Amino acid sequence: MPRVVVDVMPKPEILDPQGKAVLGALPRLGFSGVTDVRQGKRFELELEGEVTEAVLADVHRMAETLLSNPVIEYFTVHVDETVVTA
Amino acid sequence: MPRVVVDVMPKPEILDPQGKAVLGALPRLGFSGVTDVRQGKRFELELEGEVTEAVLADVHRMAETLLSNPVIEYFTVHVDETVVTA
Repeated sequence: MPRVVVDVMPKPEILDPQGKAVLGALPRLGFSGVTDVRQGKRFELELEGEVTEAVLADVHRMAETLLSNPVIEYFTVHVDETVVTA
Repeated sequence: MPRVVVDVMPKPEILDPQGKAVLGALPRLGFSGVTDVRQGKRFELELEGEVTEAVLADVHRMAETLLSNPVIEYFTVHVDETVVTA
């Protein structure tokens, strides 16, 4: 079954308190070398049938209307070629 | 600055109520053809210096201890080659 991944991230100019919380916790846990953290969402969609241009356009509309808030977030859509299982 | 991405997803055997909520909403919004949705988290970490094996091992430890709950989630780590900005 083909799988399409939608990654939703806060726009660069938007404050990301979850990412900042992770960034602040890292040194307390003994980790160094990380200068910034952004936290977003990942959606894995299992589709029936083939992934055509029309299907990808549909997934874009899903991402715009349901999966993300376009005012504060941006998203990317890609077909997951690596984890396709029967 | 190199960027490393940590994707955290609920394990396949774990119920994912957020994914189910999205799956249930899609037909009501007029979308068809999606048979399953899983929702997880995406972390983008900006690192200083080069991404060596030791740095990636460090990121694995961050993912295990802070970014995911290994009992109910699995994670993948990959270097983001596409969006590396100065």
